[in-house]
Amino acid sequence: MIHDYQKQINQYLSDHVENECAEPTLATSTIYSLMAGGKRLRPALTLAICDAFQQSINQDVLRASCAVELLHTYSLIHDDLPAMDNDDLRRGLPTNHRRFGAGMATLAGDGLLTLAFQWLSDNNLATTTRLSLVRELATAAGPAGMVAGQAMDIHNEGHHLALPDLQLLHEKKTGALIRYAVLAGGIITNQAPETKHLLARFGEYYGLAFQIYDDLMDVVGSEAQMGKAVHKDQVEAKNTYPGLLGLAETKHQLAIALVKARKLEEELNRQTNGDFTVLEEFLAYFK
Amino acid sequence: MIHDYQKQINQYLSDHVENECAEPTLATSTIYSLMAGGKRLRPALTLAICDAFQQSINQDVLRASCAVELLHTYSLIHDDLPAMDNDDLRRGLPTNHRRFGAGMATLAGDGLLTLAFQWLSDNNLATTTRLSLVRELATAAGPAGMVAGQAMDIHNEGHHLALPDLQLLHEKKTGALIRYAVLAGGIITNQAPETKHLLARFGEYYGLAFQIYDDLMDVVGSEAQMGKAVHKDQVEAKNTYPGLLGLAETKHQLAIALVKARKLEEELNRQTNGDFTVLEEFLAYFK
Repeated sequence: MIHDYQKQINQYLSDHVENECAEPTLATSTIYSLMAGGKRLRPALTLAICDAFQQSINQDVLRASCAVELLHTYSLIHDDLPAMDNDDLRRGLPTNHRRFGAGMATLAGDGLLTLAFQWLSDNNLATTTRLSLVRELATAAGPAGMVAGQAMDIHNEGHHLALPDLQLLHEKKTGALIRYAVLAGGIITNQAPETKHLLARFGEYYGLAFQIYDDLMDVVGSEAQMGKAVHKDQVEAKNTYPGLLGLAETKHQLAIALVKARKLEEELNRQTNGDFTVLEEFLAYFK
Repeated sequence: MIHDYQKQINQYLSDHVENECAEPTLATSTIYSLMAGGKRLRPALTLAICDAFQQSINQDVLRASCAVELLHTYSLIHDDLPAMDNDDLRRGLPTNHRRFGAGMATLAGDGLLTLAFQWLSDNNLATTTRLSLVRELATAAGPAGMVAGQAMDIHNEGHHLALPDLQLLHEKKTGALIRYAVLAGGIITNQAPETKHLLARFGEYYGLAFQIYDDLMDVVGSEAQMGKAVHKDQVEAKNTYPGLLGLAETKHQLAIALVKARKLEEELNRQTNGDFTVLEEFLAYFK
């Protein structure tokens, strides 16, 4: 299933982004990062929840679901900038600013962030659905969410964070957007508040597992496998789970997050009319 | 009247932005640029149109109207970055990145851009009103609007643009957001499509006059008067009206834009039940 979602998402993005850019270099730079082979995890999560509730994946659902991928791509481009993480490699290719310069990379990011809100607002889903998606995404990605997480990250480089602070950093930097992606499926399919709450909590634990796994891979993965530089966290004195807890305890924390996510999946299966077996495939990502 | 609007806007921003930022340095950096003494022209235009239609300026109208100032401030912060215009001074103070570093400045901009969409979506105006504001602002500010204008600007430094291309650049870089600000007043007060069309056209000519005036001031103004470096356009081989047309013809173009704006003001007075004399004060800005 994930593979099907990825195909639909890639097709939609490749068909619809280029002609949203009114300047040729901006278009090239935007497409360069957007079509660089991302896993499309976030929009795939939204589509999976839609599927679980038997919502057909039409063009409007795709447009609304892909908005989070536009926003995620902006966050990677800005995160890689010389003034931020100063990364040369992303998904096995030179980073956007290495290829187009930091000015154009900044603009490509700005454009993608703004376009995400355009796509959430200009589809044909119900007015309240679209508005709810805008509000949730803005809250997840803004200065109380993802941007605050980034600020904590660059502000605390070289400072040793305690576990609760590290958790808060990750919750904001990575968790908020993944939580949004799962919740968005509940908003698009117009679920009851309790169901949306369960979805959001699943998203929180899934996002936590994702970040712990990412930290882990920076230690035990290879550059070829990850498509980006590894062992960078340690070199840059980044705050990470392995750095704080060691490898064994980090793996244990990952296992706990996955158990909690799986419990929420069971609760969703029990308490709603959806079929969430598709989430198993997403949980298998961490095997 | 403009002075009253500025006071209301400053009060709203100073009361409501800081606690939207969940990281202290991000909050300081965001407030630093937002409260650096901007003229609040864009939200003031929105409030003026609301006033023209006897819409009371309550907290929800203020929140929705101030969103464009958040977005405008982000565009200034990113525009000043070393990778873009590399400016040291803005409104008489060190630019955001000179004070907080380019990383934090990038994040403050990202946060303000995202917060603009949060404020448009989380107020208590009608659902369709909020959604319409989100869509119009995203379109005006995104990769087919303001961001495209910025890309044209940095991409064409040192290249001589013909007048139609320069007009397109300015229409996108500065005009789109001012057009939005005027149109937003029509959306908030739920005007007929023809009225919104007249408002948008007024905004286009007002925005054009604004940009020509700004180019002119870079040549004839002083640093003390402008609060930023002057004569920079020429040094950086920026494409400007005076550079392309000379001073006399630039002043002539400014006069033409103002005549057209004034005609639209008259049409609005004639064809709607609004009282647009307040716009005279905005047009007097260029005296």
